[in-house]
Amino acid sequence: MSQRQPAETGVRRFREPVNIEGPLGIIAGGGQIPCIVADSVTARGLPVHIFGIRGEASETIERFPNTWVKWGELGKLFSNCEKIGCRDLVIIGGVSRPDFANVKFDFGAIKNLPFIFSLSKGGDDHVLSNIVRFFESKGFRVHGAGDMAPELLVGEGNLTKMRPTADDLADIEIGLNVVRELGRLDVGQAAVVAKGYTLAVEAAEGTDAMLERCAELRKSGRARGRTGVLVKAPKPGQEERIDMPTIGPATVWKAAAAGLAGIAVAADRVLMAERAATIDAADQNEIFLLGRNWDKLSET
Amino acid sequence: MSQRQPAETGVRRFREPVNIEGPLGIIAGGGQIPCIVADSVTARGLPVHIFGIRGEASETIERFPNTWVKWGELGKLFSNCEKIGCRDLVIIGGVSRPDFANVKFDFGAIKNLPFIFSLSKGGDDHVLSNIVRFFESKGFRVHGAGDMAPELLVGEGNLTKMRPTADDLADIEIGLNVVRELGRLDVGQAAVVAKGYTLAVEAAEGTDAMLERCAELRKSGRARGRTGVLVKAPKPGQEERIDMPTIGPATVWKAAAAGLAGIAVAADRVLMAERAATIDAADQNEIFLLGRNWDKLSET
Repeated sequence: MSQRQPAETGVRRFREPVNIEGPLGIIAGGGQIPCIVADSVTARGLPVHIFGIRGEASETIERFPNTWVKWGELGKLFSNCEKIGCRDLVIIGGVSRPDFANVKFDFGAIKNLPFIFSLSKGGDDHVLSNIVRFFESKGFRVHGAGDMAPELLVGEGNLTKMRPTADDLADIEIGLNVVRELGRLDVGQAAVVAKGYTLAVEAAEGTDAMLERCAELRKSGRARGRTGVLVKAPKPGQEERIDMPTIGPATVWKAAAAGLAGIAVAADRVLMAERAATIDAADQNEIFLLGRNWDKLSET
Repeated sequence: MSQRQPAETGVRRFREPVNIEGPLGIIAGGGQIPCIVADSVTARGLPVHIFGIRGEASETIERFPNTWVKWGELGKLFSNCEKIGCRDLVIIGGVSRPDFANVKFDFGAIKNLPFIFSLSKGGDDHVLSNIVRFFESKGFRVHGAGDMAPELLVGEGNLTKMRPTADDLADIEIGLNVVRELGRLDVGQAAVVAKGYTLAVEAAEGTDAMLERCAELRKSGRARGRTGVLVKAPKPGQEERIDMPTIGPATVWKAAAAGLAGIAVAADRVLMAERAATIDAADQNEIFLLGRNWDKLSET
């Protein structure tokens, strides 16, 4: 395999954001991504209203017009949306599965109990599809964060000073294959492959915990030298609108700590909210960051 | 799904052990399994000779006729086999991948360098197939531990007081499907599924580390109650002769600590070297242990 590189490096044409009328409602789980999406959308002159899930969302959402809602307060969510004329939603940020035994339901939630029970069983993809279908059945349009803020997506091409070697490219192909098959089984979105050997596969623990495990494996001598690639891609048929895979500076630092040579993600299908900081972290750690055409790959 | 159970519980017909002439050579990695196989074979009146891999095998192998060999001492291994008239091998027990940069090779090894280089790259299955082919090319017959000591295999049926519920049986089917697909990709041999949700998938870290991760996930609230099943099965097309999946009391204790309801393994394809202790541990922890017909399943 030759060490061919994408012709344009670090350069991409962004696709156009989806246009909507009225404020965008952002249902916010944990992390900074809800605010980063809100910043991007407001920068285009579109108003937002953040619905912070109590116990999950960061307090920084209070920079924007906001309402805190608890699990089970669907009625409050609907009445607020009606009041502000919000018919478009982005649902983003990490959430734990609620412990329904301890959730108090308001009237809006009780009316929708079959939906709520549908959240307690099955793989992520199954649960997320139910969430999207539920909001659509209430007349909302549910958008992906990447549709509203396409500049947050990792594009195709190499973003860093470091580039993958032929060995890395071979590991990337294996990793994409593993992630695709896992995705079909609704298991996970990421894997680590080093010298043709699948070191780790992501399920419920998430990418960060998987990378920490790889660092441990390396310490215990099951992998040596700076080799291996973190591959991240959406599940095929995944409800990408509300569970798009994400990378950020922490992903890069953990990949570097695990001794990996780089990170390859499905181009246009993975969010990199903190773009500059993420690329900086990769350059500092001398690892590569590659957006790999995934749609073409999926066709084969 | 009904809660049907196998008609015969904890009862199985063992298949006949393979008959060989002359001593059985056991190339021993870590753990007690090499000695347990040796005990079983010698109980049938067949002599054994254990080749303990230095730094991997337990000193308890010295109960049997033995020779210690280092990585790279293939010449010593071959000359010893010739001396004692050993043409049949079982290769068993955990090994770390050798760091070839620090291995001193004897003449027998140097003559076989292409084989040695084949061990430094690719998934387990690839490496293990090369090992079997190599010994066969030298005129050895390589047997599975289950061929020489079939009573160490988990048979079909329920082995414990506890039995799987309908929910558990559904999780088992999902788990077997995940493990089969992972196996096709030469990734791992085990997964944990709870309420239809794949909590964890095994790759290089091994089953014990995967179960410890599930215990952590449970603590952090991503899984509740005593639910979920550890499913273990060989990779399809795996070189089962030298990498048969294994369970033991430690597996049971770790599964219990992870809050799982039980363990299901591919019947006749998984070793349970410490049979009584493993079943006792399951009964003590009130979890089930099920041998699930895997050949029939693989046909579908």
